Amino acid sequence: MPDTKHPTSGGPTPADRGLPTVDISGWTCPTPLRDQPRVVMGHGGGGALSAELVQQIFAPAFGGEILAQLGDSAAVSLGGVRLAFSTDSYVVRPLFFPGGCIGDLAVNGTVNDLAMSGARAAYLSCGFILEEGVEMPVVAGVADAMGAAARAAGVEVATGDTKVVEAGHGDGVYLNTAGIGLIPPGVDLRPQRVVPGDVVIVSGDIGLHGVAIMSVREGLEFGVEIESDCAALGGLVESMLAVTPDLHVLRDPTRGGLAAALCEIASASCTGIVVQERAIPVPSAVANACAILGLDPMYVANEGKLVAFVPREHADAVLDAMRAHPLGAGAAIIGETVETHPGMVVARTPLGGTRVVDLPLGEQLPRIC
Amino acid sequence: MPDTKHPTSGGPTPADRGLPTVDISGWTCPTPLRDQPRVVMGHGGGGALSAELVQQIFAPAFGGEILAQLGDSAAVSLGGVRLAFSTDSYVVRPLFFPGGCIGDLAVNGTVNDLAMSGARAAYLSCGFILEEGVEMPVVAGVADAMGAAARAAGVEVATGDTKVVEAGHGDGVYLNTAGIGLIPPGVDLRPQRVVPGDVVIVSGDIGLHGVAIMSVREGLEFGVEIESDCAALGGLVESMLAVTPDLHVLRDPTRGGLAAALCEIASASCTGIVVQERAIPVPSAVANACAILGLDPMYVANEGKLVAFVPREHADAVLDAMRAHPLGAGAAIIGETVETHPGMVVARTPLGGTRVVDLPLGEQLPRIC
Repeated sequence: MPDTKHPTSGGPTPADRGLPTVDISGWTCPTPLRDQPRVVMGHGGGGALSAELVQQIFAPAFGGEILAQLGDSAAVSLGGVRLAFSTDSYVVRPLFFPGGCIGDLAVNGTVNDLAMSGARAAYLSCGFILEEGVEMPVVAGVADAMGAAARAAGVEVATGDTKVVEAGHGDGVYLNTAGIGLIPPGVDLRPQRVVPGDVVIVSGDIGLHGVAIMSVREGLEFGVEIESDCAALGGLVESMLAVTPDLHVLRDPTRGGLAAALCEIASASCTGIVVQERAIPVPSAVANACAILGLDPMYVANEGKLVAFVPREHADAVLDAMRAHPLGAGAAIIGETVETHPGMVVARTPLGGTRVVDLPLGEQLPRIC
Repeated sequence: MPDTKHPTSGGPTPADRGLPTVDISGWTCPTPLRDQPRVVMGHGGGGALSAELVQQIFAPAFGGEILAQLGDSAAVSLGGVRLAFSTDSYVVRPLFFPGGCIGDLAVNGTVNDLAMSGARAAYLSCGFILEEGVEMPVVAGVADAMGAAARAAGVEVATGDTKVVEAGHGDGVYLNTAGIGLIPPGVDLRPQRVVPGDVVIVSGDIGLHGVAIMSVREGLEFGVEIESDCAALGGLVESMLAVTPDLHVLRDPTRGGLAAALCEIASASCTGIVVQERAIPVPSAVANACAILGLDPMYVANEGKLVAFVPREHADAVLDAMRAHPLGAGAAIIGETVETHPGMVVARTPLGGTRVVDLPLGEQLPRIC
């Protein structure tokens, strides 16, 4: 669908734009991005604008084969060993939120990106960009949370760097983590391996991280305190791979939520995806908060969930293994891949209707991670 | 020297403080750092304040053996393979300067950190933190420079991430790179391997990067345009290791300059270092600029130089190999290690005097890289 056109700025929800497809590989800008004058918040949202930045600026500039695969982590070969290698920067606001802080988020986020390649994280790097004047106990609290999260995930922070910028050029603490881990033999998790007939499984309740951030940032109360689901998924993935190494693809639905993860996989695999809305686990507190705020839980960020595309013959056994793990207790089959509408994600509504699930343009809520 | 006391804030040059030692492992704060209220610019300067932050907050929080070695990069083992793993964040201001920009700086900086472990960089990650409103051609220019530098250094940018923060919470572009590379068999570069009698070699003219940044930032003119020496040192290191894998330690003197690099090695190796000031290659343009600005070239940052500690029997051959490489054409022996004054760096002045070269407290010039 190379002639698909999206506006380069606009409302927060893709539904507003009434667009028919989710094919980001064919996503073209009415104005080529290099002629767009400035970066907007949506370029960091993990949606179509982010993809455009990567595809039109970074990928051509860097010119690598591996980056062009656009996975959560890169699978590289070094000294005869297959490694997963990944990085994320973290600019979440506020720094501390119910269920976590930027420190454990930065550890778990990179551990999870590696886990989505099937790799157990072995070593992390961490880069701090501190704003002059930030309180030292804040820095210590973030560092302590990183250390605790690293120990919990069984990963070692091996190298680091700290820079300080003047007050007014940062926001307390920005963090970057990169990580490396071994990919076990026989494991090959890529969207390109998805085929029609695969079963789509999500590991539990969606929307918790985004709603937790929103509740503290906007000072909203929803009756109960909603905590981020921030957690390291390496152990859950290991228990799934113990059933079969032949999983097709895993993705942790962070920025852009479950919708963005599904759209990216549909596009990269050229496969259609059909999900049953009723089957998607949405906690009532998240549903209520989203109803009040006019958000769709499928677009809200998660930090301790994964979505798996599994060959049909292994689906029940993988689901059982997930439910036996504390971080997969709420796992559910939410849909399947189909031959029709390749590259497009469709949701069946509880009332029997059908809607297109589109890649978000930016992020409903900036600086969610 | 565990009773050495440094003030926790103060003037820009260590000489102002008249302190006798450079032992950062025994550096203690009159007030424990966690009770210091706030981060100051010097915590990012690569000097004593940076070391204190790592030793008192990050190392205890992360608790790893490898981080505690405090090298430019970590040597880790994964799948039976020895890897160097390193990260740096870049916040240089301005983004573009004579001789380079933040993009090639970020590639070369991490390539060089890996080279200081003897490793040829294989893969890089890159994390962008963009400020809302930054001009798109600036982002494209930085990315293009990264790509060109990566190709020149023979390294592939394999994975990346982009975040955007609101205007007023960044400064155009902040970058992080992490990198991995293989450490060749038989190579073991660590300060702990330095012994009295080692020869200290610097690969060429010092002070160029810092003075180049300063000249554009402050709008100063020194008659000639001074360009940053920003370059990737992997090839130079390979040519040195081809002479002998038995080099003892390499360090690239970035933040804090040659002085900080020497002080860190003296401290970590518990060896004394004596350098001949007259032997240190300082271009006249750098010397003049430093004289005007009241700076000591030994404390000014470099981005394409290294300092090597080499067993005496290999020193001449290593020096010859360096001089045969374009990035080592100006290499010079500048001193040696001694049994006396362990942990301390001493410079012999041209007039026959002796001065202590102390670890800088912070950085003469913030946001140099």
